[in-house]
Amino acid sequence: MRNIKLVLQYEGTGYSGWQIQKKGKTIQGILEKAVYTVTDEHLRVTGASRTDAGVHAFQQVASFKTRSDLTSDVLNRAINANLPHDIRVIKAEECSADFHPRYSAKNKTYSYLISYKGAYSVFLGRYSWLVFYNLDCGLMKRAARYFIGRHDFSSFRASGCSSKNPVRRIIDIQVSERASFNFMTFRFNVPLIKITIKADAFLRHMVRNIVGTLVEVGRGRLSPSSMKEILKLKDRRCSGMTAPACGLFLEKIKY
Amino acid sequence: MRNIKLVLQYEGTGYSGWQIQKKGKTIQGILEKAVYTVTDEHLRVTGASRTDAGVHAFQQVASFKTRSDLTSDVLNRAINANLPHDIRVIKAEECSADFHPRYSAKNKTYSYLISYKGAYSVFLGRYSWLVFYNLDCGLMKRAARYFIGRHDFSSFRASGCSSKNPVRRIIDIQVSERASFNFMTFRFNVPLIKITIKADAFLRHMVRNIVGTLVEVGRGRLSPSSMKEILKLKDRRCSGMTAPACGLFLEKIKY
Repeated sequence: MRNIKLVLQYEGTGYSGWQIQKKGKTIQGILEKAVYTVTDEHLRVTGASRTDAGVHAFQQVASFKTRSDLTSDVLNRAINANLPHDIRVIKAEECSADFHPRYSAKNKTYSYLISYKGAYSVFLGRYSWLVFYNLDCGLMKRAARYFIGRHDFSSFRASGCSSKNPVRRIIDIQVSERASFNFMTFRFNVPLIKITIKADAFLRHMVRNIVGTLVEVGRGRLSPSSMKEILKLKDRRCSGMTAPACGLFLEKIKY
Repeated sequence: MRNIKLVLQYEGTGYSGWQIQKKGKTIQGILEKAVYTVTDEHLRVTGASRTDAGVHAFQQVASFKTRSDLTSDVLNRAINANLPHDIRVIKAEECSADFHPRYSAKNKTYSYLISYKGAYSVFLGRYSWLVFYNLDCGLMKRAARYFIGRHDFSSFRASGCSSKNPVRRIIDIQVSERASFNFMTFRFNVPLIKITIKADAFLRHMVRNIVGTLVEVGRGRLSPSSMKEILKLKDRRCSGMTAPACGLFLEKIKY
């Protein structure tokens, strides 16, 4: 059996997330159908990250084991020919038998976009969290520092999270303010806050719960230093709301 | 009666174009409903440009006559509160009684985006024409020059175009090549060609038919100088295909 690694990109708005479900279109489901059309084998396509409904990916990684003798390049083109415009294989390559998209990953990077101050562009609704109050980005930056390092992130995990160990290591968090953004070749003078988090791995909803909590800090409802206590309390009820999925982008997975 | 001018932005993917139809969601239809909710008057909202299904607008202009005594700012906020995320009033202001969005316009600017060479990003499908062959942008630039000035554009008008006079003046056409594009705060190394056309007014499908013809030039099927003959023939069958609506953006209307 050959082990094929896929690098994928998707615009998640129209999908019920990565993981196959009984109801709803999923990235994994559509990908497995395309792989079946190409290889004539019913194969399980395993992903590195089970992104939620509406989350976008610049670089998701997946793999499948096949008896097909098609070259990686032919597989790449043939799978793409069977995918909708908003899911794309960027690269297909043969990898070692022990490669696993999730377990082999060294770290992952997610970015999250927030538009605020009530400033608006019609292109923001699909790709950012529209926050209608002002945010103090300086406070959010100070708060974010408390998350760096190895911590028990129980206060930031979804209730349904199946992971046995709630400890994760956040390698870096960047919170930055932009006065404008570019969309295709056009420029909009609408401010955005971008939060980029790199960690060895993530718990379910961890990025979205951290972002929701940082927004509480940005609007002055929580102090930056209270992050320390929230981490200590290991209780989801202490942290902020889960930020909406549409602002989240899976940016990079490192092996 | 007060005459209210609206500056609008929309992401056209989900709509059957500007103009109200018996079936399908239209920008005009949704806007008139929102205006009715706010003013309690059944009003006609007139637009400057009847954009096709799937066309986007950064700056569409519309107006309506009302007996409401709400200030422009209140109208702006109240109408927005009744619009979906992908249609937005950027500005509402009282204007003179004789202002008409279409007849008062001095000129309009449209831009069109083409992605080519088979290069791909999942964000391009909604906002550009995905062309899977290579295009010679230099040839397209040379061809575009023939359109500048006052011409009979019969070869580039849709069969259903209701305008009596097929003569329009193109003030400027810019064809430019970009090695990459920015999407929100992210950068993609995917080449794009951008065509920007400024004219006193446009016939139905004129931009899309010019773009379709320039793409024929870019792939070597028509010579740049043949544009001259195509204009002379005044026959829609001589020019290229109608480029898809999703790549088209109404950028600016000048009064």
